Amino acid sequence: MRTFTFYDRISRSFHQHSSLSKLLVVLTVSGGGIAAYAEPKSPGVNLINTTEGDGDGKKKKVVVLGTGWAGISFLKNLKNPSYDVQVISPRNYFAFTPLLPSVTCGTVEPRSVVEPIRKIVKKKNLDVVFSEAECIGIDAQNKKVYCRSNLDSNLNGEEFAVDYDFLVIAVGARVNTFNTPGVVEHCHFLKEVEDAQRIRKTVIEKFEEASLPSLSDEERKTILHFVVVGGGPTGVEFAAELHDFVKEDLTKLYPKVKDIVKITLLEAADHILNMFDKRITAFAEEKFHRDGIDLKTGSMVVKVSDKEISTKERNGEISSMPYGMVVWSTGIGTRPLIMNFMKQIGQTNRRALATDEWLRVEGCDNIYAVGDCATINQRKVMEDIGAIFSKADKDKSGTLTVKEFKEVIDDICERYPQVELYLKSKDMGGIVDLLKESNGDVKKEAIELSIEEFKSALSQVDSQMKNLPATAQVAAQQGLYLAKCFNRMEECERDPEGPIRFRGEGRHRFRPFRYKHLGQFAPLGGEQTAAQLPGDWVSIGHSTQWLWYSVYASKQVSWRTRALVISDWMRRFIFGRDSSGI
Amino acid sequence: MRTFTFYDRISRSFHQHSSLSKLLVVLTVSGGGIAAYAEPKSPGVNLINTTEGDGDGKKKKVVVLGTGWAGISFLKNLKNPSYDVQVISPRNYFAFTPLLPSVTCGTVEPRSVVEPIRKIVKKKNLDVVFSEAECIGIDAQNKKVYCRSNLDSNLNGEEFAVDYDFLVIAVGARVNTFNTPGVVEHCHFLKEVEDAQRIRKTVIEKFEEASLPSLSDEERKTILHFVVVGGGPTGVEFAAELHDFVKEDLTKLYPKVKDIVKITLLEAADHILNMFDKRITAFAEEKFHRDGIDLKTGSMVVKVSDKEISTKERNGEISSMPYGMVVWSTGIGTRPLIMNFMKQIGQTNRRALATDEWLRVEGCDNIYAVGDCATINQRKVMEDIGAIFSKADKDKSGTLTVKEFKEVIDDICERYPQVELYLKSKDMGGIVDLLKESNGDVKKEAIELSIEEFKSALSQVDSQMKNLPATAQVAAQQGLYLAKCFNRMEECERDPEGPIRFRGEGRHRFRPFRYKHLGQFAPLGGEQTAAQLPGDWVSIGHSTQWLWYSVYASKQVSWRTRALVISDWMRRFIFGRDSSGI
Repeated sequence: MRTFTFYDRISRSFHQHSSLSKLLVVLTVSGGGIAAYAEPKSPGVNLINTTEGDGDGKKKKVVVLGTGWAGISFLKNLKNPSYDVQVISPRNYFAFTPLLPSVTCGTVEPRSVVEPIRKIVKKKNLDVVFSEAECIGIDAQNKKVYCRSNLDSNLNGEEFAVDYDFLVIAVGARVNTFNTPGVVEHCHFLKEVEDAQRIRKTVIEKFEEASLPSLSDEERKTILHFVVVGGGPTGVEFAAELHDFVKEDLTKLYPKVKDIVKITLLEAADHILNMFDKRITAFAEEKFHRDGIDLKTGSMVVKVSDKEISTKERNGEISSMPYGMVVWSTGIGTRPLIMNFMKQIGQTNRRALATDEWLRVEGCDNIYAVGDCATINQRKVMEDIGAIFSKADKDKSGTLTVKEFKEVIDDICERYPQVELYLKSKDMGGIVDLLKESNGDVKKEAIELSIEEFKSALSQVDSQMKNLPATAQVAAQQGLYLAKCFNRMEECERDPEGPIRFRGEGRHRFRPFRYKHLGQFAPLGGEQTAAQLPGDWVSIGHSTQWLWYSVYASKQVSWRTRALVISDWMRRFIFGRDSSGI
Repeated sequence: MRTFTFYDRISRSFHQHSSLSKLLVVLTVSGGGIAAYAEPKSPGVNLINTTEGDGDGKKKKVVVLGTGWAGISFLKNLKNPSYDVQVISPRNYFAFTPLLPSVTCGTVEPRSVVEPIRKIVKKKNLDVVFSEAECIGIDAQNKKVYCRSNLDSNLNGEEFAVDYDFLVIAVGARVNTFNTPGVVEHCHFLKEVEDAQRIRKTVIEKFEEASLPSLSDEERKTILHFVVVGGGPTGVEFAAELHDFVKEDLTKLYPKVKDIVKITLLEAADHILNMFDKRITAFAEEKFHRDGIDLKTGSMVVKVSDKEISTKERNGEISSMPYGMVVWSTGIGTRPLIMNFMKQIGQTNRRALATDEWLRVEGCDNIYAVGDCATINQRKVMEDIGAIFSKADKDKSGTLTVKEFKEVIDDICERYPQVELYLKSKDMGGIVDLLKESNGDVKKEAIELSIEEFKSALSQVDSQMKNLPATAQVAAQQGLYLAKCFNRMEECERDPEGPIRFRGEGRHRFRPFRYKHLGQFAPLGGEQTAAQLPGDWVSIGHSTQWLWYSVYASKQVSWRTRALVISDWMRRFIFGRDSSGI
């Protein structure tokens, strides 16, 4: 065994220093770009390991449902050993979902984008137990969750209940079919690793099928008609990947059918990538046009049969076309577990669980929700305007001086982030400008506002409230934020660090969650990517593709996946994508 | 696109120089071993490209059924452009099957051991059409094969017929369950890439299942009881791989269940690896004993239910044990297609299609069979003894002189390889010694044999006839041999190079197929491998493992798979095996 000591040692050092993965990976690019990427820091929530709570021997039980971006980010950053953590998820791995479109065509292998949960949570001081099971019910009254194992077993015991002191719901969302008939039966989705694997197998099968000797030309054309529904980032990236796969790899191996392959992208709105800057949308649409991808905007799918997909066009006409394969990628819907739980706690007519700004589920104790299954119900300034006014009016004079106001400005901005957004949108330097606006042209220092004037000054700020997008970035930041809260729970209990409670006494324990947008990519194929960076910077082209490589390599969850993803990219450059039907 | 020219060029050079893959890969090992491995040369069948037959514009149609070792070896080596080749196989890829046991535990990834057929056959001068379909019937009378596509399709045309001038049957074999009840329903096999993938997923699922909170200890033990049936090279290698996977990777991640994992290897005979040298068998049995693998020899499986596996021991007793997972690996059986075809051509009560020494199916015209679906029916010397005598007795004197005999010695040895084997087994220098033995102590030159004496001299040689083992090595050598015959078909028609026809006039077109055994490996886990090399050399231990790495890397079908397999091995050393349940 002598020869392996060296390997063992390397292996061990990689296994143990998973925290090294926070290191930046910087790729120097011939195009001249250098990309660096860092974890955002939640303001003021610094990482401190507290060991209190361990003393009395009774650890609090934290149950985490789900191991997607939010769940894993929470688990990776939870360092306080005073919790007993139980993780429940139907998958025993975390998947780096932004690379799923790459997996569909073999640019990256499925196993390169997954990492076992048990490996991620294997930390020295933390007690984490993982169970591969699906949560089927939450009992907030009795602080219990009910779970069912989805493992194929001939034994009993596949259902069990777990008690919690704190529950973190991070189960994500499911595909939204908008109840379109035939979608579940006939379409591929692109949400899980298995979906991507199935798509890859099916694409190759379609090429094999079209190469069989006994078919008519019409049949071959139908078989090789690939339809992508949904012009969001995922649908667009999949269409681009598929186009590259066909053009760079498959046409060489299936020369007889190369001219009859057709890719159609259907989008119900007027443009694809409509959450991006117009320049990106225009570039993408033009590139797809050049690539021969048939882009149909304003085209809503109304039905999918086993042979045809029917759409309703802008003019109201219904038309149908035969297809070989449909990939459905139109946004997210609510999971049944969340739907039931919302009914139970009286949150109805919502797409996701409403939480407050501290990610606590509204109407529940000790239940948190993060990621795609949750949405933050930002409190309106106007709801609290009276409380804010009386809190600020320290001398109870009935009017607010600038001095009084200045003392609570920071707390207001922290508690109601829409205020800052509003000021920014109006190009105002500070909140005093806002007051000034409603107080005429008095000198700053002389401003004194009545409650009515204060109300009218702030009357528009709530218009700036926006829901956060359902992205990996939001989920990861929420998980990180929540972990940091959990790490300092007792400390902040004693010594709260949040803003003043306007409708109560004292301060909030923690600062509320604030999302920091770090930019978003839209890979468009042919080694070109568009990126919308913070501050409305737009970057398009080959160098952005290298930025994309660099960011995605650095964001990998482990050194193993990082090494594999990079070697997959290199392998693709050298050998192309594999087209074996496995 | 400037930056990719370099990659494109590398890519192209790799794609085009697939013949480079014949190069030896030599790994220098710290243990001191250096391994070199070369393709065996069929004696005298040199590779010459003939272009005749292309002139009249009517190419002969060669249909190849199957793309395993034999089929691919045939296709890779067929260089004569005067054939239209059609390949029919239910899989569009070739799988490097000796690495399947490594795939079961993630030591090597499935995609690293497969290569698309279309990539392998993409040659400049050769017209090869591939169809992903299964052959369901052979009509030797009308020179047709009937095929059915197994692709999931909603179109017609999944059945079609193909005409042939020459048919090469290389469909391999299927798993042999010996009609044991419950095997098909409850056991895993290890024959295809999909089987290996399923085993990997199931092993991890069993560990997850045993980690669920609601089970009794007894249930956990049952779930983690892995049973391997069959002590041949595949079963032994799988048991060893599984043991390594559990010991090196899984016990770290599932510490609570590590002590209850049990691996049982069942073998009906008295020893495992009984086709190997006794030293190897003893070493393997001792190693398994040390590793805690429960080895039960003389134990024949008689039934598998959903919960228990029942065996009949040497003393006739039937005993049952609960299991979590069973892998069945007991040898090969006949595919239904071959069974039906044998019935049709009157070959009954056989395990495989009988061919002559030129791999032509007996009783058929222009049909060849290679690999596991075929067996060579070596002609006995005693059947032809009269013909041999009269052909050798040139002066028709009724006796055979040494001079006369020497003139046909080479032809006899070539036509009847058992003669040489017999001489070797008796430690005789040459065939004349054999004659001398039956002629007393006369001087060599004075020997004269009557037909009766000649018969008695050769009476024992046929005892040396042996069936070839059903291995990748035999299949690959047969495919190579057949391709070389096809390459020189017309040339050898004019100018035959085979031995004299003893029962006819002239010479045979080709030399008969001769198998050259290059040795066999038995990986035993823990970086130890046993190898039985030609000349009954036995090598066991770490350095043999490096020989194994070196040989298996060099034998890969493409540079892509070679690079991937080697990088998989490195990845395993550094990061361990992945245990994500995908």
